[in-house]
Amino acid sequence: MQLQVLLVAGTHGNEINGIWLFEQWEKSPFLINTHGIKTYKVIGNPEAKKAGKRYINNDLNRSFLTESLSSINASNLEGIRANQLVKLYGISGENPCQIALDFHTTTASMGSCLVVYGRREADLALAALIQKKLGLPIYLHESDKKQTGFLVESWPCGLVVEIGPIGQGLLNSKIISQTKLILENLLEQIREVKNLNLYFPEKLIIHRHIKSLDFPRDEEGHIDGYVHPLRQSKDWQPIKKNDELFYRLNGETIKFEEEETYIPVFINEAAYMEKNIAMSFTKRELWDFKQEWKQSLIDLINQPKVLSLQ
Amino acid sequence: MQLQVLLVAGTHGNEINGIWLFEQWEKSPFLINTHGIKTYKVIGNPEAKKAGKRYINNDLNRSFLTESLSSINASNLEGIRANQLVKLYGISGENPCQIALDFHTTTASMGSCLVVYGRREADLALAALIQKKLGLPIYLHESDKKQTGFLVESWPCGLVVEIGPIGQGLLNSKIISQTKLILENLLEQIREVKNLNLYFPEKLIIHRHIKSLDFPRDEEGHIDGYVHPLRQSKDWQPIKKNDELFYRLNGETIKFEEEETYIPVFINEAAYMEKNIAMSFTKRELWDFKQEWKQSLIDLINQPKVLSLQ
Repeated sequence: MQLQVLLVAGTHGNEINGIWLFEQWEKSPFLINTHGIKTYKVIGNPEAKKAGKRYINNDLNRSFLTESLSSINASNLEGIRANQLVKLYGISGENPCQIALDFHTTTASMGSCLVVYGRREADLALAALIQKKLGLPIYLHESDKKQTGFLVESWPCGLVVEIGPIGQGLLNSKIISQTKLILENLLEQIREVKNLNLYFPEKLIIHRHIKSLDFPRDEEGHIDGYVHPLRQSKDWQPIKKNDELFYRLNGETIKFEEEETYIPVFINEAAYMEKNIAMSFTKRELWDFKQEWKQSLIDLINQPKVLSLQ
Repeated sequence: MQLQVLLVAGTHGNEINGIWLFEQWEKSPFLINTHGIKTYKVIGNPEAKKAGKRYINNDLNRSFLTESLSSINASNLEGIRANQLVKLYGISGENPCQIALDFHTTTASMGSCLVVYGRREADLALAALIQKKLGLPIYLHESDKKQTGFLVESWPCGLVVEIGPIGQGLLNSKIISQTKLILENLLEQIREVKNLNLYFPEKLIIHRHIKSLDFPRDEEGHIDGYVHPLRQSKDWQPIKKNDELFYRLNGETIKFEEEETYIPVFINEAAYMEKNIAMSFTKRELWDFKQEWKQSLIDLINQPKVLSLQ
């Protein structure tokens, strides 16, 4: 069985740069250097794209829950779509893909980064290769019971690529170039693993998710303060006790009161307001690269058949 | 009859900073210094705000057309809302307002500016006072048959305030502060006119709308190029022959080929993509301030009754 990689853009319909890149690529097949890797590229949520919205009924990137994938509510467009994508491109699907790469944008000033969900060995190995090549930060999303059902979790290996800052529905040259660059580097690194041409780093820097923080709210639950000007756009920069956090129009500054120092990410991501997330806090950690991660990725890429029979 | 000013935020439901400022003001009546001017503040399109969209059926800020205001299609939410706003706050309405101030945001890097529609004397006089006080650019929108039916045109005097850059659906401290500052300065200047405490400038700088430019498109009408990195965020900066305009992913740069030099505005405003506008071109002109503008504004503000009987 051939190695096949699923490439997704527009999992959120208003993150249009990846969608646009894929459409251009469809018209000009040589636009992206796939490094000989067989890929399928899909628009995650075409209905939401048409509507110019993140989603229609539910966030597609929270819809890949094992329970909901088996019992789809026919009125839930995103549930149906999740099921369809797994049927078409899942590891036991019609066009089995071992790896899923999901291209997103954010309104937060995070630059480009990789998101891994949980601590799957192959994910960490692939992320490490990209961090070594491009220096991208890795955000490890875990231990968050409120945010689950991410697309890439339904594939044996998968990464989210987040690129920002960019407003929703806005085409931007930098964001498109970054998307193309990271996509091509991911495929190049996958080819290197296929060729056993392996240069894994000894260490990797992980930003481990600790928790998320809501906006300040009044008694009725309405947001009554915004991200402090000194905190806005300071993603990846440590926040410590007494640092400015939020601001109210009455002049009140809400300070960060915890003893722990954190690294905030997704500061003021527009789509997270409805999820009650003003920002998320991480811990920056230096991890040793483990040989079993490497083996997992090699096995996945070079013996795809074995995995598909599991 | 008392002078009354209509203040509108959220004419576009996803331009949330003004909406949020108005909501905070509702809770804390002393948040905004109204300088003794009687105001009504309204959310222009509350349904679109709930949906997190610019509009539901039609752009509300293109729905104030004389013909459609008289014959409203009941299935057109924005047509109904336009009619309702005129009935409630129009010069012959239940709470007659002589002036309408409409607060918007843009994804373009335009900073703050005023938009006037056509060459109404009172509009130009009020805009001149704000330009003198705050230095804001004035964009004169006229001679554009494709873009008509703006809210402020249904009031004897009215300005749009545009503040950017900010993504849709995103709360931002700078944008909120700018909105508050300009709102308070507008009310202060209106009070000065009311008190005949008048310091009009001798000249004003006008950016006069010439035309709008679409994105490059392929044979099927799909956008196949984006704003060139050297043009992005260069609002208010002259573009001349052979300057970079758009870029295609195949490496092709589309240059500006006209002999005329223009000043571009609304470069890459997300909401204008569907209106086939990548940017608009203006001419920067120095106009003499005319005494009749001043008299128009004084009459409007100090003899509001006369006008309401016209």
